[in-house]
Amino acid sequence: MKLLIKNVAISCDEGKTKEHQNIEIINNKITGFPTNPVESIYDKVIFGKNCLALPGLVNTHTHVAMTLFRSYADDMELMDWLQNKIWPAEEHLDDDIVYWGSMLAFAEMIRGGTTSFCDMYMYMNACAKAALSCGIRGNIARGLAGISPNGKQALQENIELFKTWNGAGDGRIQVMLGPHAPYTCPPSYLKKVREIGEKYDIPVHIHLAETKTEVNNCIKEYGITPIQLMKDIGLFDIPTLAAHCVHITEQDIRIMAEKKVCIAHNPGSNLKLASGIAPVLAIRKAGITLGLGTDGASSNNKLDMFSEMRLAALIHKATSYLPKAVTAKEALNMATYEGAKCLGYSNLGKLKEGWLADIILVDRSGFHWKPNFNDISIAVYAANSQDVDTVIINGQPLMVHKEMLTIDVERLNYEVNRVVKKLYAFNR
Amino acid sequence: MKLLIKNVAISCDEGKTKEHQNIEIINNKITGFPTNPVESIYDKVIFGKNCLALPGLVNTHTHVAMTLFRSYADDMELMDWLQNKIWPAEEHLDDDIVYWGSMLAFAEMIRGGTTSFCDMYMYMNACAKAALSCGIRGNIARGLAGISPNGKQALQENIELFKTWNGAGDGRIQVMLGPHAPYTCPPSYLKKVREIGEKYDIPVHIHLAETKTEVNNCIKEYGITPIQLMKDIGLFDIPTLAAHCVHITEQDIRIMAEKKVCIAHNPGSNLKLASGIAPVLAIRKAGITLGLGTDGASSNNKLDMFSEMRLAALIHKATSYLPKAVTAKEALNMATYEGAKCLGYSNLGKLKEGWLADIILVDRSGFHWKPNFNDISIAVYAANSQDVDTVIINGQPLMVHKEMLTIDVERLNYEVNRVVKKLYAFNR
Repeated sequence: MKLLIKNVAISCDEGKTKEHQNIEIINNKITGFPTNPVESIYDKVIFGKNCLALPGLVNTHTHVAMTLFRSYADDMELMDWLQNKIWPAEEHLDDDIVYWGSMLAFAEMIRGGTTSFCDMYMYMNACAKAALSCGIRGNIARGLAGISPNGKQALQENIELFKTWNGAGDGRIQVMLGPHAPYTCPPSYLKKVREIGEKYDIPVHIHLAETKTEVNNCIKEYGITPIQLMKDIGLFDIPTLAAHCVHITEQDIRIMAEKKVCIAHNPGSNLKLASGIAPVLAIRKAGITLGLGTDGASSNNKLDMFSEMRLAALIHKATSYLPKAVTAKEALNMATYEGAKCLGYSNLGKLKEGWLADIILVDRSGFHWKPNFNDISIAVYAANSQDVDTVIINGQPLMVHKEMLTIDVERLNYEVNRVVKKLYAFNR
Repeated sequence: MKLLIKNVAISCDEGKTKEHQNIEIINNKITGFPTNPVESIYDKVIFGKNCLALPGLVNTHTHVAMTLFRSYADDMELMDWLQNKIWPAEEHLDDDIVYWGSMLAFAEMIRGGTTSFCDMYMYMNACAKAALSCGIRGNIARGLAGISPNGKQALQENIELFKTWNGAGDGRIQVMLGPHAPYTCPPSYLKKVREIGEKYDIPVHIHLAETKTEVNNCIKEYGITPIQLMKDIGLFDIPTLAAHCVHITEQDIRIMAEKKVCIAHNPGSNLKLASGIAPVLAIRKAGITLGLGTDGASSNNKLDMFSEMRLAALIHKATSYLPKAVTAKEALNMATYEGAKCLGYSNLGKLKEGWLADIILVDRSGFHWKPNFNDISIAVYAANSQDVDTVIINGQPLMVHKEMLTIDVERLNYEVNRVVKKLYAFNR
């Protein structure tokens, strides 16, 4: 398909915005920025009047189907929340429930300008099918708990997931290995994960150093931090995306930099679950690739990358007393180019010729965009996920002028109501 | 006017939501919740289908017309920002510019469910006129800098402001005294402010303990903290709303509790300007009335109370490691009932019979509202200022189903463009 976005503003690397630009997309790539395009040669022309084009936002850590637990249990202690609310409810999941829970999450993501996600959960065939159906880009992993009776089976499922779905949807779907965390996956199990990763060339997505308790328990049991334990096990010898990394030492940061581990920073979830605030300045200083994530909607409670960008730009200023700690531009970069790197892409996350065409158009007509001296400042500090007007993923328009093109919203609402009743039947 | 809101959800004090309720408003008060209302006896019926009714949000600290400095200067050191960007630009303000800057702010506030504001700035007659014209509720104060050559004149202007506008718009406009801060108002000047406050019975709105530097300088100069200095001067003998209070001691908190000083907590601005994080848990434990504010759009960069509620509920969890530090319900309470108390109201900020009719209807049809087990959780953690469907202030509908009824949006856009050009002419 030959697609043209006509008359749109583009923010340049120098931070200035060029108005009245055009973007040409052929198949799944950005092929140029023609100055006088002839509309008739394109299959579709999308008018970008008053919109700012940005690279699609990349959500580097989430549990897609947990959207069905949104608002089910908030303002609770972590273990109370998990043991008494989330885990019992998760027992009742199935393919049907996860499919529609995933579709709800994708609808929310697309609506809010998120074009890629990185998921770790269960019933992942259903998640893959929903992603393929709606056209979103995503990395999926089977969540693996080595201490669980089904640990071995889950690892086998993760291999099958890789064989079945890796590269599907014109490369939109990539499969990772999903060992949950050091406290649920003992070293012997993680070594098996590493072997599988090496054998099949599959990268890893894991939770690391999310809470103080986790780190303290790890030190008590193994004498070293979770990061050091992962290094010793050899997990970092395969490409690894580590979510959270809230409680990490300088030595941990040096290890991750050396091993080229990527980090998914989840400010909203880390705040809400009272986990703490990740040492983002030190992480960035070490040159570690740092993306942003929402975590699941049950601990956020939304899948809104505009909110995460704002939090990432704001909270580290206050904790460091440095007003330039994370600038608006850096936060946007985390949510786009660096996030895409976390997912293993080297040609995604910038509006550049030859790069993958994941593009969002953000409507600048709201009162909160006025006056506008700096589009990136407003996009990060003032804009709203609901400003997103149009979403293109892999060259395919999924939402145009707020109309969803690949998700039947009425059916989605019906099916979500249905699976929510089914999921929570145990609770009545 | 007799107004009926029909078929709306109302959140009760116990946290449960009652669906299919009706709210009756006569003139400016909530007069009841009729179960079988006869539509024909009302002048206007607003249908609340799928909406949640909440008390209007109260923005307890802002500088309304500074909306015109939005995105003009971000990610800068505070003094560089003030001295080289904001203060030089403020030299070029006039009544015309402040009127339309204020109207832009009010449009953004109403659009996002804010029904009351508390402002301290200059050209306040223009601000009052704009507020009266659009129907918003607000407390206004002339910003007073005792060290400025016009300090004496400004205080006179503040008295005139009180005489002219206090109680205007059926009581919607209240006037406060606006001494800027201890570092711009020496003790002799603040004593004059206190005398005026006592003489005319005018409460005070002041910035206190916003930055470490301010507190350190105060201790260096006076040997005591800004809070202790204000107590010694006697400022707290008149009702005082103190904005920020980021760097305060236990003794400061005891003083403010004893003197019934109210605090406006501005999480977004305090984070963005790298001021720090206010000790909200200790403030609340002391029983101090605590509202939320956005501060000016130049240091936020928006006037979005949904964002401030979310920040208030999130950041204190992480700094205290307590997941219940500030619950969703407490954050909503700060943004409504406690905020209204900060502004001097005792019959505003709850949906109660006999109370003032400032009501917003929040549309729950977005994907981020699904599933919904707890309206308050979603309102605080997931909702969005753009979910606001309808806004009623003092019994008057200002926005119904997203249509602005008292602000001509096309003219507003035209006038804002005009005054922005005029304001920044010096910069070309």
